[in-house]
Amino acid sequence: MREVFQQELAEVQSRLVQIAELVEIAIQQATTAFRTSDVSLAEQVIENNERVEQMAAELDELTIDILARQQPVASDLRLMVGSLRMGSSLERMADLAEHIAQLARYRYPESAIPQGLRKTFARMGELDAKIAGKLVELLRTQDPAFIDEIRDIDDMIDELHAKVFEKVLSDKVNTDTTGVVDATLASRYHERFGDHAVNISRQVNYFLRGALL
Amino acid sequence: MREVFQQELAEVQSRLVQIAELVEIAIQQATTAFRTSDVSLAEQVIENNERVEQMAAELDELTIDILARQQPVASDLRLMVGSLRMGSSLERMADLAEHIAQLARYRYPESAIPQGLRKTFARMGELDAKIAGKLVELLRTQDPAFIDEIRDIDDMIDELHAKVFEKVLSDKVNTDTTGVVDATLASRYHERFGDHAVNISRQVNYFLRGALL
Repeated sequence: MREVFQQELAEVQSRLVQIAELVEIAIQQATTAFRTSDVSLAEQVIENNERVEQMAAELDELTIDILARQQPVASDLRLMVGSLRMGSSLERMADLAEHIAQLARYRYPESAIPQGLRKTFARMGELDAKIAGKLVELLRTQDPAFIDEIRDIDDMIDELHAKVFEKVLSDKVNTDTTGVVDATLASRYHERFGDHAVNISRQVNYFLRGALL
Repeated sequence: MREVFQQELAEVQSRLVQIAELVEIAIQQATTAFRTSDVSLAEQVIENNERVEQMAAELDELTIDILARQQPVASDLRLMVGSLRMGSSLERMADLAEHIAQLARYRYPESAIPQGLRKTFARMGELDAKIAGKLVELLRTQDPAFIDEIRDIDDMIDELHAKVFEKVLSDKVNTDTTGVVDATLASRYHERFGDHAVNISRQVNYFLRGALL
């Protein structure tokens, strides 16, 4: 029984990695589409989101099935609950990538990024893609070093989020009201994306520490 | 054993109702603080959020404890998983109420609501408070009629969310960049609050329908 359970845990882990990989592709494409006003790339992100939703729903079903059949307790039970939470955060990250892609699509052929904020959003997009990559690595290797890296990248994203507002509210950004609305929403989506990566890394941290006790 | 489990389910339900009641108070106070620029009311919302976080964490612990001791299967298991999800959505609703209160506090003694949007935000705030009240009733009575009401209120909130952007992007709103940023964020927070109420009502719907099969 224990061996079967170990195999099932490995399956859960492998599915989490697969979903995280799709999220990484989604945010890479979404931030590229946003930066370059590439409407067909934006549409691809929007289309692909269904696949993440489906995989997250399947992972939920698998986890509930394991709970029912294996009746895990203690740390194994918490791992299953953690899997439900991580799946839900990954799904939300894919939604946020989709929102960024939608902003790019709405404003096409105009750019959704106001003049004066291009560099800031390019950097924020890079960091969102980077944090997603580190999350894939964390889920794959379970190396706790990635937890600190994810927290550090999120701190940088938060700083850029504050900088977007600072710039928008100064006279450094030359834009109309549409630009201010787009920048506000886009910055919020980028920032929330990082928050969810931190949430997931905290779940992993919890298990890694628990395993050490 | 079954009787004990029934008692524990009742306890979970009662805790969900208690947290939802705190969320209802939080959104009532937050939207009032936002509308009237009442900084001390805003600070009360921010302070009270800790209590919701704590109660949601305690509900999570109780649910995990029930899972470990009772080893529920089938619909009972799904009810426990649903409780984890509902707790997490309620916590997020309280966070969004806190964000609205924070906007009111940041702009004090100025109003965070631009001229021309007062009525729209007053109505959105009323609907957020109303949807929270319906959610309390749904969780308390498990009467499926509230599920449709919640969906209808959310549709109205979504319409107002679109209206905020329409007004901001027209010349009907006389405001500066700060006002545009505040209105964008506030509208987004109000809209997400409704989404989470719908998520929770879907969880309840799932169980009520399941119970009928």
